[in-house]
Amino acid sequence: MQRYFVERNQFHDHRVDILGDDAHHIQRVMRSRAGDKLIVCDGAGREVLAEITELGKDLVRLEIIEERRSESEPAVKVWIAQSLPKADKMETVIQKGTEVGADRFIPFLSARTIVQYDAKKEAKRLDRWRKIAKEAAEQAHRGIVPEVEVPLTWKQLLALLPETGAALICYEQEQGSSGLRQVLQEWKQSSAAADGKPLMLVIGPEGGFEPSEVETFTAAGGKSVSLGRRILRTETAAVVGLTGILYEFEEI
Amino acid sequence: MQRYFVERNQFHDHRVDILGDDAHHIQRVMRSRAGDKLIVCDGAGREVLAEITELGKDLVRLEIIEERRSESEPAVKVWIAQSLPKADKMETVIQKGTEVGADRFIPFLSARTIVQYDAKKEAKRLDRWRKIAKEAAEQAHRGIVPEVEVPLTWKQLLALLPETGAALICYEQEQGSSGLRQVLQEWKQSSAAADGKPLMLVIGPEGGFEPSEVETFTAAGGKSVSLGRRILRTETAAVVGLTGILYEFEEI
Repeated sequence: MQRYFVERNQFHDHRVDILGDDAHHIQRVMRSRAGDKLIVCDGAGREVLAEITELGKDLVRLEIIEERRSESEPAVKVWIAQSLPKADKMETVIQKGTEVGADRFIPFLSARTIVQYDAKKEAKRLDRWRKIAKEAAEQAHRGIVPEVEVPLTWKQLLALLPETGAALICYEQEQGSSGLRQVLQEWKQSSAAADGKPLMLVIGPEGGFEPSEVETFTAAGGKSVSLGRRILRTETAAVVGLTGILYEFEEI
Repeated sequence: MQRYFVERNQFHDHRVDILGDDAHHIQRVMRSRAGDKLIVCDGAGREVLAEITELGKDLVRLEIIEERRSESEPAVKVWIAQSLPKADKMETVIQKGTEVGADRFIPFLSARTIVQYDAKKEAKRLDRWRKIAKEAAEQAHRGIVPEVEVPLTWKQLLALLPETGAALICYEQEQGSSGLRQVLQEWKQSSAAADGKPLMLVIGPEGGFEPSEVETFTAAGGKSVSLGRRILRTETAAVVGLTGILYEFEEI
């Protein structure tokens, strides 16, 4: 069944309103009519089955038939921190990462980030990223829309570590003892994991991390991990790391 | 170190020749000179460290310094059978699947395949797919170039099942008991896995499989598996399933 995410204030007592682009999509693309049923979510876990009662310009009004529990959200929350990659690769990371089950995307700048960061274009790009996350969440039947943050500096990223249960930096020089699997199996036994604290996966840019960045990261309490013996493109690493984590936590 | 795959007949007693596009790449893009060292592979597991001795038009000649063992190949061989997806998504599957560690790509046609199969354009497209596999293998430091097969019919695909140790069809209607993880953990104990037989992962087109296809597949000895509670795009499913398998077999 088609699924739409709306703002929380579009939910009312027994009804919910869908506005703007989504209202157009329902009428023009899906050609839905009064009586048709949809799933509507508030993007924060609330999910209802609803029936269309009114179709207007820029507005579709629905009556709530039943409240449902979203069953598609992983128990483990994974934050993808991604050093800004070139071209449209950040879009790929957000789209695929949302499908697979990421909770939050945190773009950041690191020493070897190639792209020029342009604060003026930022608002527009952020809008686009958030739209991609919303559409991917709808298609994947997610119960939430993952957050996409404003790009952080390396220092700001390090400052997030205390909020996480574990922070893993993917480092291609790392071999053997700290494979992702081993680190995850140890972490699963920890109290931080039991408390549901998020796990942050940190992915470098095309040229990887500077050794000094990995040092400051581990000094700040993070762990350096390997994703195996094959060299992954930056946008592939995010999806592979996320899949590994969700696989370990029996979500795949 | 830069890595190139060449045909086996380009290897000679103590030297190896790199021809064509790769020879251009070495000279024009990498601007390599006599004395520079490269890794050269025959795409079937042989890997040598070699030094450039001669640079000519369409030819770079190298002296073999030492034979090496490729250490980047997974012990478990995974075949990705992918129902032909729209647009350039097959290219994405081949590129990402090669990076992650697939052994072979088998495109096929199934009931809900949307793309028109055009035998005339086939040769050209197959060349392109194989080029993508080769370049991704070089970048990922693979020891082999995964094979990319000519698209098969559904019947031809079923005929491959006896060659595999297990054949898993990803089916989004499948819930609970046959999650990928459970199926893999059972298979790991089997003699087929111990014998190193390949594991075939079968992914449907955008619209998924017909229930009757899943029935014929399981009747032929395959297993239906779920990749979790989130709905994945066809090109994401291949990478997620492959990553799950390699994670289970401690390759990630």
